Amino acid sequence: MAKMKAAVFVEKNRIVLEDKDIPEIGPLDALVRITTTTICGTDVHILRGEYPVAKGLTIGHEPVGVIERLGSQVRGFHEGQRVIAGAITPSGQSYACLCGCGSQDGPDTRHGFRATGGWKFGNTIDGCQAEYVRVPDALANLCPIPDGLSDEEVLMCPDIMSTGFSGAERAEVNIGDSVAVFALGPIGLCAVAGARLKGATTIIGVDTVAARMSVARGLGATHVVDFKHGDVVKQIMDLTDGRGVDVSIEALGTQGTFESALRVLRPGGKLSSLGVYSSDLRIPLDAYAAGLGDLSILSTLCPGGKERMRRLMEVVASGQVDLKPLVTHRFKLDDIEAAYELFASQRDGVMKIAITP
Amino acid sequence: MAKMKAAVFVEKNRIVLEDKDIPEIGPLDALVRITTTTICGTDVHILRGEYPVAKGLTIGHEPVGVIERLGSQVRGFHEGQRVIAGAITPSGQSYACLCGCGSQDGPDTRHGFRATGGWKFGNTIDGCQAEYVRVPDALANLCPIPDGLSDEEVLMCPDIMSTGFSGAERAEVNIGDSVAVFALGPIGLCAVAGARLKGATTIIGVDTVAARMSVARGLGATHVVDFKHGDVVKQIMDLTDGRGVDVSIEALGTQGTFESALRVLRPGGKLSSLGVYSSDLRIPLDAYAAGLGDLSILSTLCPGGKERMRRLMEVVASGQVDLKPLVTHRFKLDDIEAAYELFASQRDGVMKIAITP
Amino acid sequence: MAKMKAAVFVEKNRIVLEDKDIPEIGPLDALVRITTTTICGTDVHILRGEYPVAKGLTIGHEPVGVIERLGSQVRGFHEGQRVIAGAITPSGQSYACLCGCGSQDGPDTRHGFRATGGWKFGNTIDGCQAEYVRVPDALANLCPIPDGLSDEEVLMCPDIMSTGFSGAERAEVNIGDSVAVFALGPIGLCAVAGARLKGATTIIGVDTVAARMSVARGLGATHVVDFKHGDVVKQIMDLTDGRGVDVSIEALGTQGTFESALRVLRPGGKLSSLGVYSSDLRIPLDAYAAGLGDLSILSTLCPGGKERMRRLMEVVASGQVDLKPLVTHRFKLDDIEAAYELFASQRDGVMKIAITP
Amino acid sequence: MAKMKAAVFVEKNRIVLEDKDIPEIGPLDALVRITTTTICGTDVHILRGEYPVAKGLTIGHEPVGVIERLGSQVRGFHEGQRVIAGAITPSGQSYACLCGCGSQDGPDTRHGFRATGGWKFGNTIDGCQAEYVRVPDALANLCPIPDGLSDEEVLMCPDIMSTGFSGAERAEVNIGDSVAVFALGPIGLCAVAGARLKGATTIIGVDTVAARMSVARGLGATHVVDFKHGDVVKQIMDLTDGRGVDVSIEALGTQGTFESALRVLRPGGKLSSLGVYSSDLRIPLDAYAAGLGDLSILSTLCPGGKERMRRLMEVVASGQVDLKPLVTHRFKLDDIEAAYELFASQRDGVMKIAITP
Repeated sequence: MAKMKAAVFVEKNRIVLEDKDIPEIGPLDALVRITTTTICGTDVHILRGEYPVAKGLTIGHEPVGVIERLGSQVRGFHEGQRVIAGAITPSGQSYACLCGCGSQDGPDTRHGFRATGGWKFGNTIDGCQAEYVRVPDALANLCPIPDGLSDEEVLMCPDIMSTGFSGAERAEVNIGDSVAVFALGPIGLCAVAGARLKGATTIIGVDTVAARMSVARGLGATHVVDFKHGDVVKQIMDLTDGRGVDVSIEALGTQGTFESALRVLRPGGKLSSLGVYSSDLRIPLDAYAAGLGDLSILSTLCPGGKERMRRLMEVVASGQVDLKPLVTHRFKLDDIEAAYELFASQRDGVMKIAITP
Repeated sequence: MAKMKAAVFVEKNRIVLEDKDIPEIGPLDALVRITTTTICGTDVHILRGEYPVAKGLTIGHEPVGVIERLGSQVRGFHEGQRVIAGAITPSGQSYACLCGCGSQDGPDTRHGFRATGGWKFGNTIDGCQAEYVRVPDALANLCPIPDGLSDEEVLMCPDIMSTGFSGAERAEVNIGDSVAVFALGPIGLCAVAGARLKGATTIIGVDTVAARMSVARGLGATHVVDFKHGDVVKQIMDLTDGRGVDVSIEALGTQGTFESALRVLRPGGKLSSLGVYSSDLRIPLDAYAAGLGDLSILSTLCPGGKERMRRLMEVVASGQVDLKPLVTHRFKLDDIEAAYELFASQRDGVMKIAITP
Repeated sequence: MAKMKAAVFVEKNRIVLEDKDIPEIGPLDALVRITTTTICGTDVHILRGEYPVAKGLTIGHEPVGVIERLGSQVRGFHEGQRVIAGAITPSGQSYACLCGCGSQDGPDTRHGFRATGGWKFGNTIDGCQAEYVRVPDALANLCPIPDGLSDEEVLMCPDIMSTGFSGAERAEVNIGDSVAVFALGPIGLCAVAGARLKGATTIIGVDTVAARMSVARGLGATHVVDFKHGDVVKQIMDLTDGRGVDVSIEALGTQGTFESALRVLRPGGKLSSLGVYSSDLRIPLDAYAAGLGDLSILSTLCPGGKERMRRLMEVVASGQVDLKPLVTHRFKLDDIEAAYELFASQRDGVMKIAITP
Repeated sequence: MAKMKAAVFVEKNRIVLEDKDIPEIGPLDALVRITTTTICGTDVHILRGEYPVAKGLTIGHEPVGVIERLGSQVRGFHEGQRVIAGAITPSGQSYACLCGCGSQDGPDTRHGFRATGGWKFGNTIDGCQAEYVRVPDALANLCPIPDGLSDEEVLMCPDIMSTGFSGAERAEVNIGDSVAVFALGPIGLCAVAGARLKGATTIIGVDTVAARMSVARGLGATHVVDFKHGDVVKQIMDLTDGRGVDVSIEALGTQGTFESALRVLRPGGKLSSLGVYSSDLRIPLDAYAAGLGDLSILSTLCPGGKERMRRLMEVVASGQVDLKPLVTHRFKLDDIEAAYELFASQRDGVMKIAITP
């Protein structure tokens, strides 16, 4: 059986490039030859053993590639076609999917739900930091890349862009809203872009790294706040003339950012939570107006499926959002261990790394 | 090859019972042995040649039955299981389905939409007025019948109940709303029940047949209006003290009911249209406030898929809505031609006919 | 100046009946003579000093009465008319109100928001446990009582019913949803009724007091769970066959009920929080799926304004919800101190007490 | 009593500048000295007698000015403050307003609704093509102009921008949507801008005037279609690869544009209607999929109120939308009859005319 290179989780603190069999596919699957992929912050959690996956699993959930082979039931595509798939690959056919909750896609039982069940690549099935990946439920998940878009231009669609935009979408940002985004990593930067796309007119980015703050301005932030320059809640209340923001987006996953995101809300505001947390969260009584503040706390897992991918690639094609500045480094798949090392250490101003086999 | 009985459209004004091959199934399909089905008003349109279908097509889109055989990719069900499927059988995997529009499910192309494309049974593929039916995309469409519910109790779920309820759902009926329902056939009666389930407190049914008006009262109508007893718009405006209703539901498919449904709306109201029309519609300038009335005209095709069916059967099981009075007649499949004759003529107070092989 | 009796907050643990001046009114106000009112759980928080109000304030926010006098700018009403007003009295004219957030109504500045600012009676202005009350912004807040409804029948509208129903409304309960309601005091009981009005088919009430569980069944609970009979989360997961509920409603205001309400949610579910909390809340990491569960935590303060009151009285008039069993005791205003003592001690199966001057 | 100049409707085809008394104000009103206003297409309908108003009425509903005097109950503003008010001036306190339907604001009765009742200036009360205007319900309707914005920069907010944006908002345009806008007058141009603000990625403007098509491109149109260059429906279907658009916006008020807007929709799409019609509308059966296409036809009257104005001015201040190119001509109030003549004839590439006393 033919072999391929794949980045495999061996044990805590060890993701290594190994030879594995090229995946077999079933009638509903597609085999995609990866042309570009990347490393996600979540992969670093996996590397460090903070998010448990099976030993031997291929990591990675952001595939850009070419259809190598189609399952017998997968019509409407052709081999050689350039495609992406989302980090989340809903079946489209479970109870969860049919009530609009594909990211929590579960097994075909009466229940149909499983927490984070739609996230399969590099979590419950082999991922795409490899030469090939098997895409499940290919009909629902393969999305052709529009002519004229490069791999790198669509590389953010499977996860970063989908997650970041959803921060603004979930809170139903309206024309004229004010929005604060906590942490300007790749997700937070896409949340800034998403807030602007939805019509926010005041967008406040919070971080301390100058390069990120600069990219945030380019993507639509009207203000940036350095949390090292004084109390961030006070800075934002001052910027909004004491009113607070309509929407805050948490894009880091810590108590501090969560709590600040709550405190800067106007009464009736919405906290849109994108971060992956690693400990319990606390809701302070005063920040919560004792439960009487008409506040919303909304968590969202990256939306997937081919319709989502189609729309995000339309955004890229329209030129309204330019995420190319996020790709700061490029590595060969053969050097992915070094890429992990760089990314995990957050050295050299790294934001996203394009990996090509 | 084994044969079965099936009601087939032969030509205008001729639907006849014929012997046909029992359907073959593919990997994604299920073969269901029909235990009960019924005739829909739309089938009468087909009979009369008003809605075109291919000659030789088996008619019927309201299946209750037992799984006879499962395609190789259909997991989570077992042969012998009692199931229903919706009149509309979305794939769950097209662009249309993935943006929440499964009733307009289209082919697997870049587009993904086709008008009424989700309606397949007895329209674009063989239907269920037969001993057996092939259910496409079985994973998304088969729904087990809860223990304790009879065939007749769930017979309205595939179409009548799903369509009727959607009249209230599409208009987002709120607690305390006033709703007028135009025409109290099976769809209109279910629209009454749906409006009550969504919290409407004034529900005005419009018809002239005493038996239907009586059933409407049992399902939640607080008032019934006989359109033969004077101008229906005036009657409804009087009942609402001149205010008009928040929501009107059109459940017949004529210019007269459509226009009255528009005229009884309060400014900012919503007309929810369920009827199948057979000619152009006219929006009178005055009824439309010259385009300045903040009015909504919303048409809806029956929602399908197994999650929808699950929820509707939950309603039946909860005892909140009792649709048994709608089944006024019972026929054997062998006598379906007589059933069509009765149903098309609307004799003998017929509402719905249970057909059993 | 004419005097009246009023229940006044004197100091912690002392609300006493005093003589006060009958309120003066301005051009936008109405003076309402109270015919019936009641005591709310929040008033007990005030009594105990847990919720701070000014010394000398008249308590009470659930007015039923008769218009005694109208401000010069208040048209469309007449003296002698029977009316209610909501516990929350939005102005309708602030930025907060005009963006649909009247419960957080603030002063007429650029901001327009103040946390819980719409709650004025017995909080920031004199309340209605008195012979007379001044209703601010009367045009937006007075609502005539429909003929045929008694004081006691509409007594729950200003707060209990509005708050309880909003628990189901805020979570957008759909036809066929499963809902769990934590704590079956008056608010929780109304949340049960609201969930049924919105079409929920599985409604699980949680409490331990038999009388409350019985009333819950009468209002639409399909199951009741006694938290003293084993782990409540496990009981609810068993009742839902391991799936969890679509919506949980917290109606007490404790960490325990909040946490259980989170744990019984299916992935993608919604926690609707009505309780008034008195300490920080904790979101356990596992119950929150580390932020990846597409969960919503939604807090709501009682909606007010005359349109809200009109709709709730329509519900009462329609006979769909019968809240009369909630009024377990009746006292004269002269005996309100005894009524407080009874209500605060939760003796004698007390749910709500009708107070009449 | 002091006099002022005002443009008054005398009779069909005659709006003339006359001397009138400066308006008196009541406790809830403000008197605003107009510094800039403009003429709306609707005013031309009034001029021509196509939209009936009382003889002697001052015309005009787009006020920019300075507070001259405040009613006794109007707090939070000060004389000399620069303000605008919307073309629509909801009271905020009627049943209509309190259920979110302020444009259909009615009298203070049980009903609370009147079709187009929120439009008062130059329709049911004196308007603002004058030196002074009385603003009713000033608390809900006066909105301070942010520092740094000129009169002309905010002149589109009261009507053009509010109406045009609402075309996109009412249809809930999503990120990645395709939108077609029929007719690129000032409203259509603002609809283009609104669609872009809401995240549409394909925006097709339809017109034939080169200057308007050019401004449309500047405001976000990705394509422009000339209806004189072949069938407009075919052109749009070709541009969308046969799929049709998610949303179409009608911004003219004719059967032709309405019908084309319906025909270019994908199944499940939404027609957002902004035009003021002058005859009945026809919905062709095929374009309506016989009522089975899940289509929405949504009409909208300009949203008003100070919160709306605040948000629109935030959009201007943010620099995201530049509507200055719409102001093509400037006239003194003394010359308003000439301005009407120019605007009604649509000569000289006129789009909007700034009128200053």
